[in-house]
Formats: sequence, structure tokens, C-alpha cells
Amino acid sequence: MNDRLLRAYRREPGDATPVWFMRQAGRALPEYRAVRERAGLAEIVRDAALCAEVTLQPVRRLGVDGAIMFADITTPLPGMGVDVRFVEGVGPVIDRPVRTLADVAGLRTFDPGEAVGPLLDAIGLVRGEGPVPVLGFAGAPFTLASYLVEGRSSRDAGRLVALLRTEPATFRALLERLTDVTVAYLRAQVHAGAQAVQLFDSWVGVLGPFDYERHVLPHLRRLLSELAGLDVPTILFGTGNAGLLRLQAGAGAGVVGLDWRVDLGEAWQLLPGLAVQGNLDPSLLLGPFDGVAEQAGQILERAGGRPGHVFNLGHGVLPSTDPDDLRRLVDLVHERSAVRAVRP
Amino acid sequence: MNDRLLRAYRREPGDATPVWFMRQAGRALPEYRAVRERAGLAEIVRDAALCAEVTLQPVRRLGVDGAIMFADITTPLPGMGVDVRFVEGVGPVIDRPVRTLADVAGLRTFDPGEAVGPLLDAIGLVRGEGPVPVLGFAGAPFTLASYLVEGRSSRDAGRLVALLRTEPATFRALLERLTDVTVAYLRAQVHAGAQAVQLFDSWVGVLGPFDYERHVLPHLRRLLSELAGLDVPTILFGTGNAGLLRLQAGAGAGVVGLDWRVDLGEAWQLLPGLAVQGNLDPSLLLGPFDGVAEQAGQILERAGGRPGHVFNLGHGVLPSTDPDDLRRLVDLVHERSAVRAVRP
Repeated sequence: MNDRLLRAYRREPGDATPVWFMRQAGRALPEYRAVRERAGLAEIVRDAALCAEVTLQPVRRLGVDGAIMFADITTPLPGMGVDVRFVEGVGPVIDRPVRTLADVAGLRTFDPGEAVGPLLDAIGLVRGEGPVPVLGFAGAPFTLASYLVEGRSSRDAGRLVALLRTEPATFRALLERLTDVTVAYLRAQVHAGAQAVQLFDSWVGVLGPFDYERHVLPHLRRLLSELAGLDVPTILFGTGNAGLLRLQAGAGAGVVGLDWRVDLGEAWQLLPGLAVQGNLDPSLLLGPFDGVAEQAGQILERAGGRPGHVFNLGHGVLPSTDPDDLRRLVDLVHERSAVRAVRP
Repeated sequence: MNDRLLRAYRREPGDATPVWFMRQAGRALPEYRAVRERAGLAEIVRDAALCAEVTLQPVRRLGVDGAIMFADITTPLPGMGVDVRFVEGVGPVIDRPVRTLADVAGLRTFDPGEAVGPLLDAIGLVRGEGPVPVLGFAGAPFTLASYLVEGRSSRDAGRLVALLRTEPATFRALLERLTDVTVAYLRAQVHAGAQAVQLFDSWVGVLGPFDYERHVLPHLRRLLSELAGLDVPTILFGTGNAGLLRLQAGAGAGVVGLDWRVDLGEAWQLLPGLAVQGNLDPSLLLGPFDGVAEQAGQILERAGGRPGHVFNLGHGVLPSTDPDDLRRLVDLVHERSAVRAVRP
């Protein structure tokens, strides 16, 4: 198996910089769009073979060094008794949001086997195929809370922030429950074969370090410490985290994912002893490849060939991205970093 | 006149840390809401006496150390031939967005006296009242471009970013025009009596440092260098700028405004020789005052009593904020920083 991704996550030297893309399985690929003509997102995740197939599509087409499981951040929520609908152009919608202490108390206990059995089976299938490591993932507690409280994607997570201000006990109880669920969910993914796991804190960028330290970090610390015994690399990705890095460094993850709004070199200095993942602006792929190549070169330059850099986008692949450009980018990263590795 | 604000902007020691609030004139104040029952936002800005009155309301009620003129970021746009409507719950809406090189070429030359005469008169009236310095402001070119291209507030400025990727010449031409307009607009404000001017780059947080350096900073540099001869403090505020600070340090502004998603102490280290303004999370004011006091104390601690800190929120006052809490916050900042100033 190509293990350069796992080596980089452990900050061991490798033959080239590994690369994968957030949302690499998705609408940018014609073979994915073909699947979606016959199955919705939730249906794919409930069909182990189809889920494994969709997960492997980008590995085959793009030559990436990791296979992140195809699922949604909200995938575990029905296992807590929360119904999720997917609405075209909106994303996941929760018609009965969770906003009171009674709502939190009413959440069901999450049983991974019962809630996401086919997804766990799919992990085993992808692991069995074996070309590259299998990555599991989950939404981080704050981000899951954002979906549960807002009922859908929200620009500023205004209701969740208001809950934090006016009902801090409810906020805390909700994050504690979601931390428990996420530990169970990620543990099950690792037991099923996932070789690294990533936490997506997609909405945490609405908070500053003052609140992050008091109201988010303690939950992440517990979550990551409960995963420590599994001995797999853990990646903490947060959108808009440029001002949170010094705190994230102490969360207990071995790898911090960077979005595109921070210089990778400056960021890595704030993350001593950790690996980093990132951080090409996905919108560059809407323009000529020259721009992509220029920023990719700058990122590799900033990483300086040190062990512990995994190349990725700073956010998910945009649906209108040309997959040929993604393939070119994978090749470019491999070639340039391989050259770098043999320099005297 | 209370000049502690201007002293701080010039990094001179003062008797206490000055404080004002972005959007201090606005819906949090009952006297403003009373005005809005008889006049819309655009009407206020077209009535010099009313505009001056609304600008001075927070100075009287809150005891802030500066009077920022009441206006909207889009206020100069009609002077370029762009019609703007204000829609309740949406904000400014531009029905005929600017998206092509021909659209850019069709923008009218901006004549401040003709376009915003009453606002300039209002500056003179506020200056004449004289209790505190008068602050002028403008949207920064990228943010003005965002309104012009998107037609309204946009979460990710997706169309503007797409324009940058696919039509870079159009993007550049638009930013050049907006830079010219903003120079003229701010010059006129200073000639009318503004004693400092702030650039609001409210949407620049969608860009990373790679693009900021190439596509935004050159315009800001020119803009600020053309204002340099006016010899008034210039403040560059950008929402979501935690990862851009090292670049913003070289834009030519004497002061950098920080939003709430960065530690003020860490940020200031990236801004050698400059003053800083910020950065309390405005959402704290939705909760008990204890939280406000705690973060205010932390911010003052991080600033360490060094000359050159202006206390502010990290973003505009939220409409549901209790003005009594704002007043308490002003008093708290003054009292704690005054105590600090006499320490041995």
C-alpha cells in the first residue's frame, strides 16, 4: 500500500508530499454525478458497496494518496433521533432543531452499528481494496451543534452563538452529548478499518480565541484524548481558524488542517511538534491552471520539504472544478516534492 | 476637545485607553430608532443636520471618544451612477450589478461635492460641536467591488472571486476605479473636517494571503499613499483578517483594526510600529455583562497599557445590544486603563 500519507501524518520522511482533497468524492467527478442520477446522498451512505465505490472514484481518477469516506457531516445525526433532509441548493435541513435543555435530553443514545452500519461496512470494503489509506471523519461538536441548533447551514451560526451567551448550560450539555457521539462514531470507524480520522469544524470560524478556549477546546481535548488509545493519526480541521491555531495546537490532535486564509509557513510555526495539512484556495481551480501551480509551488516552498506536510485544499473541492486540473495538481505536488526530496 | 483617540492613533501616551464602537450610531439606540420611524438610511445621509444628529447620539449617550459619521459603505455608489436600494433584512441591494469591463467603463466619475454634499456638511457640523474627534470612513475597494458585483451582501463573495479567477483584467479595472473613488471620497471627508479615516474591508476575509498580496494590497497601498499627504490617521479594518495581518502591516495605514477572531496580543506582534484597534466580540453583549467585562479585561491586559491601543468591538454593534451595557463597557475601559496608566 502507498503509505506516504500515514508517514506524513506521523511526521516521518517519505518519497514525496502526499496529497488528497477535501470533498474529492463528489460533484466534480462525472462518475459521481452518474451515481447521483440514481441515488441520493443519504442512499449512498446506506449502501455499503455504493459508498465504497464513490469513495474510491477519486482515488482511481486523481491518484490521491488517501481515500476519505464518502459521507456527510450530518450522517450520524439520525442515529441520535434527529431527522435530516437534503435540499438541493441548501444542503442538510433539520426540521426540528435542538434548542433547549429538554431537546438535548431527548437525543437518543448513538449506537454506531445500528446508526451507520453500511458506512462501517464500506470502510472495510475500501480498506480491503487497499491502494491507499482509508480516512474516517466526523463533524466536530461545535459544527454538529451548529446544524442542530440552526437547522441548516448558517453564515454566522447566530442562534448557536446566542445560545452560548444566554443559555450556557444548554450549550455545554449539547456539546458534551455531541462529544460522546463523536467519540463513539470515530471509534467505530477506526475499528472498521479507518487508518486516520479527521474532525471537520466547519463553522468554528465564527468564534474568536476567547470563546474557543472556554467553550470549544475543552470538549475537543476530551474527544481527542478518548481517541488517543486507538493509535491512529487525528486531524483537526477548522474553517477560518487562522486566529485559533495557537489554541488548536494544544487540542490533542497530531495534525492541524489549515484553510486557505493563512500562510502555511506562518501557521506551522504556531503548531510545534504537529503535522499540517493544507491549504490551496479551492477557488483557484476556477481559473487557469497557472494560478493553481503558482500557489501550489508557494505552499510546497513554505512547507520546505519538512516531514509532516500533507497537501490538500483549504476547503472542499468546488463542484464546477475540472477533474483534469485536480489530476494535474496531484501530479505537480508529487513531482515537485519528489525532486525536492533528492536535493542534496 | 477630548483628544485621547487621536493621541492613541498616533501612538502617543494618553490619560486612558480611548474607546468607540463600530456601528455605534444605529439600531441599538432608541433615539436612532425614533429617527428611523420618520427617515430611511439614505434620507438621513442626504440631510446634513439629521446625519450630524444621528452621528452624535452615541457620543452623548455612551461617552465614546470618537464620532464616526453615520453613513453606509454603499453611500458613495450612487455618485458613480449605481442605484442602491435598502431592503429590510437584506441590506443594500444593487439591481444592476457591475460584472463586465463595459460595466466598469460605464461607471460615472465621482464628484464628492455633488454625490455626498450633505454628508460632507454633516462632518462640518459634528466637527463644530467638537466634543470628540470626527471619524470619516469608506468601504475598501475589494468590499465595494463585492457589493457592485454580487448586487448585495454575500457569504463568500463567490461571484467576485470567480471574476478574479476568470476575468482578472475586469477585476483589476474595477478595483482601480474604486480606489480612485475612495481616495476622492476620503479626501473630501478630511477637507470637510474628518480627523481620522477608517477603511472597512468587510468582505476581504474570503481571501487568503496569496490573493490578498497580489490582487488587493497593491490597490490599498496606492489608496493609502494618496491619503498620506492629508496627515490624518488612517485605520485599515478587515473582517476575518487574522491570516492577513503581516501583509496589512505594509499597506500604509497607521492603524489596523482587528475583528474578534484573533488574540490582540498575538496580532499586535505582527504589526510593528502600528497602532491597533479592537477587538471585543460583539455577541458577548447578548449575554450577561460579566462575559463582556472578562473579555474587555483580557484585551486591556494583552494591550498592556502600551500607547497605540484603541478599544473597539471586533465588528459592528448588534441591533439587539442594550445601550446601557455599551455605556458600562466604555466606563470600564476608561477606568481600568486609567488605573493602569498611573501604575509605577
